[in-house]
Amino acid sequence: MIKVSVIGGTGYAGQELIRILMRHPEVEVVTVGSRSFAGQKLSDIYRNYEGLTDILCEVANIQEMAEKSDVVFLALPHGLASKLITEDILKQTKIIDLGADFRLKDALIYEEWYNTEHYNKPLLKEAVYGLCEIHRNDIKKARLISNPGCYTTCSILSLAPLIKNNIIDENSIIIDAKSGVTGAGRGAMLDFMYSECNESVKAYKIGEHRHTPEIEQELQLFNGGDFKLLFTPHLVPMNRGILALCYANLKTDITLEDLQDVYRDFYKDEYFVRFTGDKLPETRWVKGSNFCDIGLKIDPRTNRVIVVGAIDNLIKGAAGQAVQNMNICFDLDEKTGIDFITDFPI
Amino acid sequence: MIKVSVIGGTGYAGQELIRILMRHPEVEVVTVGSRSFAGQKLSDIYRNYEGLTDILCEVANIQEMAEKSDVVFLALPHGLASKLITEDILKQTKIIDLGADFRLKDALIYEEWYNTEHYNKPLLKEAVYGLCEIHRNDIKKARLISNPGCYTTCSILSLAPLIKNNIIDENSIIIDAKSGVTGAGRGAMLDFMYSECNESVKAYKIGEHRHTPEIEQELQLFNGGDFKLLFTPHLVPMNRGILALCYANLKTDITLEDLQDVYRDFYKDEYFVRFTGDKLPETRWVKGSNFCDIGLKIDPRTNRVIVVGAIDNLIKGAAGQAVQNMNICFDLDEKTGIDFITDFPI
Amino acid sequence: MIKVSVIGGTGYAGQELIRILMRHPEVEVVTVGSRSFAGQKLSDIYRNYEGLTDILCEVANIQEMAEKSDVVFLALPHGLASKLITEDILKQTKIIDLGADFRLKDALIYEEWYNTEHYNKPLLKEAVYGLCEIHRNDIKKARLISNPGCYTTCSILSLAPLIKNNIIDENSIIIDAKSGVTGAGRGAMLDFMYSECNESVKAYKIGEHRHTPEIEQELQLFNGGDFKLLFTPHLVPMNRGILALCYANLKTDITLEDLQDVYRDFYKDEYFVRFTGDKLPETRWVKGSNFCDIGLKIDPRTNRVIVVGAIDNLIKGAAGQAVQNMNICFDLDEKTGIDFITDFPI
Amino acid sequence: MIKVSVIGGTGYAGQELIRILMRHPEVEVVTVGSRSFAGQKLSDIYRNYEGLTDILCEVANIQEMAEKSDVVFLALPHGLASKLITEDILKQTKIIDLGADFRLKDALIYEEWYNTEHYNKPLLKEAVYGLCEIHRNDIKKARLISNPGCYTTCSILSLAPLIKNNIIDENSIIIDAKSGVTGAGRGAMLDFMYSECNESVKAYKIGEHRHTPEIEQELQLFNGGDFKLLFTPHLVPMNRGILALCYANLKTDITLEDLQDVYRDFYKDEYFVRFTGDKLPETRWVKGSNFCDIGLKIDPRTNRVIVVGAIDNLIKGAAGQAVQNMNICFDLDEKTGIDFITDFPI
Repeated sequence: MIKVSVIGGTGYAGQELIRILMRHPEVEVVTVGSRSFAGQKLSDIYRNYEGLTDILCEVANIQEMAEKSDVVFLALPHGLASKLITEDILKQTKIIDLGADFRLKDALIYEEWYNTEHYNKPLLKEAVYGLCEIHRNDIKKARLISNPGCYTTCSILSLAPLIKNNIIDENSIIIDAKSGVTGAGRGAMLDFMYSECNESVKAYKIGEHRHTPEIEQELQLFNGGDFKLLFTPHLVPMNRGILALCYANLKTDITLEDLQDVYRDFYKDEYFVRFTGDKLPETRWVKGSNFCDIGLKIDPRTNRVIVVGAIDNLIKGAAGQAVQNMNICFDLDEKTGIDFITDFPI
Repeated sequence: MIKVSVIGGTGYAGQELIRILMRHPEVEVVTVGSRSFAGQKLSDIYRNYEGLTDILCEVANIQEMAEKSDVVFLALPHGLASKLITEDILKQTKIIDLGADFRLKDALIYEEWYNTEHYNKPLLKEAVYGLCEIHRNDIKKARLISNPGCYTTCSILSLAPLIKNNIIDENSIIIDAKSGVTGAGRGAMLDFMYSECNESVKAYKIGEHRHTPEIEQELQLFNGGDFKLLFTPHLVPMNRGILALCYANLKTDITLEDLQDVYRDFYKDEYFVRFTGDKLPETRWVKGSNFCDIGLKIDPRTNRVIVVGAIDNLIKGAAGQAVQNMNICFDLDEKTGIDFITDFPI
Repeated sequence: MIKVSVIGGTGYAGQELIRILMRHPEVEVVTVGSRSFAGQKLSDIYRNYEGLTDILCEVANIQEMAEKSDVVFLALPHGLASKLITEDILKQTKIIDLGADFRLKDALIYEEWYNTEHYNKPLLKEAVYGLCEIHRNDIKKARLISNPGCYTTCSILSLAPLIKNNIIDENSIIIDAKSGVTGAGRGAMLDFMYSECNESVKAYKIGEHRHTPEIEQELQLFNGGDFKLLFTPHLVPMNRGILALCYANLKTDITLEDLQDVYRDFYKDEYFVRFTGDKLPETRWVKGSNFCDIGLKIDPRTNRVIVVGAIDNLIKGAAGQAVQNMNICFDLDEKTGIDFITDFPI
Repeated sequence: MIKVSVIGGTGYAGQELIRILMRHPEVEVVTVGSRSFAGQKLSDIYRNYEGLTDILCEVANIQEMAEKSDVVFLALPHGLASKLITEDILKQTKIIDLGADFRLKDALIYEEWYNTEHYNKPLLKEAVYGLCEIHRNDIKKARLISNPGCYTTCSILSLAPLIKNNIIDENSIIIDAKSGVTGAGRGAMLDFMYSECNESVKAYKIGEHRHTPEIEQELQLFNGGDFKLLFTPHLVPMNRGILALCYANLKTDITLEDLQDVYRDFYKDEYFVRFTGDKLPETRWVKGSNFCDIGLKIDPRTNRVIVVGAIDNLIKGAAGQAVQNMNICFDLDEKTGIDFITDFPI
């Protein structure tokens, strides 16, 4: 059994992670760290665990956790993980970080977008960007995995085949993404109160969302380019799910069939990416699962391609992918413990 | 492996059943019957199955299904199952019927409440009412299991300890239940259109809902009484879940602690019933699981007890309990394949 | 023009009140008091007012407001209004208090249910309970009107004809009410975050909600009784609306037709109470209006009557009724400025 | 009083129209036509009208309606209005058509996008496109007004200042719009059932929605261009509202301040267009009103402008604008009867 600890286990991503880990056949959850709820039973905070576990939340001591765990997951606000992780810790345990600290390879870009110093530049180089479908080989050997953001996962998987195959003008990329409200986390803020979000839709942080440089970094790996794209997130009145519409100008003459084949080929060995062909993804079909559904269309009138990606923001966009990374690291079947079929309608 | 077939696999309960069965470690799904979608791939109707199964929907032939299946599940509108099931079929396969045809032991009561003839009175006696926690021993040996209704499951489990222990005046029982919209099924009807249901709540069929006599029948088994209760269902704008508030006049002086002990004792061996003590159930904590959460309060001002029960209408209220019944029948661990932890918030 | 001021204008009830007053043909809004948002433009807090008003929120000075206003509305948490209102203030202006301080005539009951001292017992006697349909004559002459609670308005209007006509056993009354989330106010609390409330239903404060003694007080006026009832509120995932199911045992033999006539007669002169006959109320039909819809059913099996009432909690349950009270006080047509037709579906 | 009739009064747009007209101080509703509900009381179909009107739905006879009405509103599926309206009718009454038949000036484009013959080409030239802010002068004198589509209204108002002032590359325009479910009408279809739409978001008809050529036609009037744009609609789980994100490449160097001034200037005399400056529109602030809120941002990294428009799809996007057109036609203050402040949160 793989012994795991979770730091930041009482946010939405952290608790989703614990839920998955508790049913993972090869895992034993040994410690749950939560500063806000230290001393309380997890099942008193999240009553879905009623009767299922007596585990207590503790103030996280990463040193102790590292000693008794094969892997420590961190689900913390940015700026914390980079202070906690040291060479010494990495000698004792693997780290899968769901936060943003090690996603951007260039500390200057991090500092610009996060408006704060980066506290652990030496580890930036070693950290592996944990988008499983793209960096699987590096993940296998990694000590420190930086789990991608939710919008990022959906956007990169949607656009990667186009960049790799040199099909679009990269400077024309616009990503218009829509997210459910769990994406905002569990902090009690007016903007995310029921009656403020319900029955309304809004865009926010247009062109300024921190997932922008992360998407650019990863897409640029496919062609060495230095392009910039525009990313717009929206808040939609639903709990879960991300739908990303990715617009780009085609730079070659390509038929829909050929373009579909490009995607089918790119993802032919990937269980968790489903190319849906003519039927475009909708969030209801991936909610509660680790799948990323991708479909696409060509608009012949404007010579554009529109790729539609859909994920569950807390699963493939956070906790599910974190476990997928763990499975890869520990040489398990990648699907182990995360092969959920979407429960519909839920 | 247990070979199973499902007739009526494309309604909400039927597809939930298939989803569960497809991940059940001891089950192989051999046939999916659906008149409306015969010839189509299940994954084209419910796109959560994209890439996961090639199974086709067929016009159900119960005779053939019986021959090749160890158990046939029926998820059909009332009046159909009673025509399909014969002694001959039962000699070849077990039947778990999610519909209403064999729930009421008294054909006259069925005919009164369903306003139609009963087509298979001979089998009424043999059919076992599949409320697992109450009829487990009979279920073990049953050939024909009649899976309870959703409101019924929640109501009976909530009230059984009170009746059995002679704590309340049975004629004072009022059940005020609230259900999500999946309870209405998948037929395209104006009343259940998004903009007609959303942002509104209503009561319906007050005192006239067909689950009323079913609740009475089962509760009366505990004391041989002949009482009548009032059952009021509501439609609430959410996909899943039932919350039942059960009101009754206390006929004995009993403390909250003693009453809680009655419940703890009654359900002490039951995995899928969670007595939540002081914290009252909410549907969000059971959604997506097979649990029935039960809590209660005493109102000393009016000398009443209020029991609150919560289930997922499509799981413990339909498909999950159907699989629980199968597990019992086939001598598996009762939790096999249905031990879901609620995914929150979803 | 009637000059009005509002203290507590930035909670949901307060802003609903301002919205109504701003379109009221006989009203001029002179001051909006809001401690939390003092110095800010109302249209920056509630952007529905964009371009429609430049009014600033101020720290309320009730003395100044009284001098320049014909009526001051208070929409404050309990315990504040009773400290602000003095004989001196009442000599200068009328007060319509949307809070709880002057609703309960018996200070002891207030202190028991609100768990705090009552700070202004002398004015309790003078304050008129502003349920317009019941106390219209007193409201006409009142200086201090105590606007009823939301659940209370709906429950009293639903049950009054039964008590007045001695049709039910008052000790059998159970009110099972369901409210949208705006009922909880605008404070940023975890329980009312979108992802915590959405897709779930729960009961809360069973038998302990502060509207209980208020309902009892008002219903007892009809027969001088001293009965106790059980009131259970629920939180339903929608913004607006209250649906109250009121259960009681019939103590006379009465037909449905006769019972309907009792209601039609009781409310025959009331514009804002609509008796809906055989068709039961649903919140969608009253949302955004000042109507209270009432329907009822008899359950002959258990000899009970079930009255169903529906209102918009922020309009007939708060701001709309406050304006209705003002209209009565100032001898306007009672419908002036509040004769909204529900916008459907919204 | 203006005598009005409505044909197609029981769809969502039709009933919204009747609701507005019934409270319009200068209007008398004389006939409501509805084939589906002929003979029924409007208040039985839409119970918000309970007690407010006894009007019956009739099979529409446009000849009779024309005789007794000053204006006839049509809210019909495409292909019907063009058959009903004749020169003879127009001699007797004004027509405001909420359907699509007379929106596209070029019958060939209509026939291509609607995949059907156009039945009344002669009147295409006379019909005035009823986007009030753009065609006010023509509307004043019009006999036949073709009320714009919902997405169209929001998109054109959002982009017009950019085209008129030659600020963007028109061929770079992408409109990514999100609509509530009432946009799909009231027909009972599986896709719009509560449990199918709720808690999910999807794009549909990408590049193929019929509002595309309508947006192009109107925007091209500003510069005589012949550009093509890409329009993508989405279905969002809410009842009301459209949010349109309009992306385009800037072709001039312009500061945010200057661009904001362009919008402020363009709409300086328009009551129903609110330029919101730095604060971007959200549908909750326009829901239930006739306002179109517009805000914008420049993304300096990609040199794009992003204009955000928001309307209520049934009011400014249909019934409200239809009444605004009537007000213009009949020389009333344009705000008469439609000067609603958004009720929040509803």
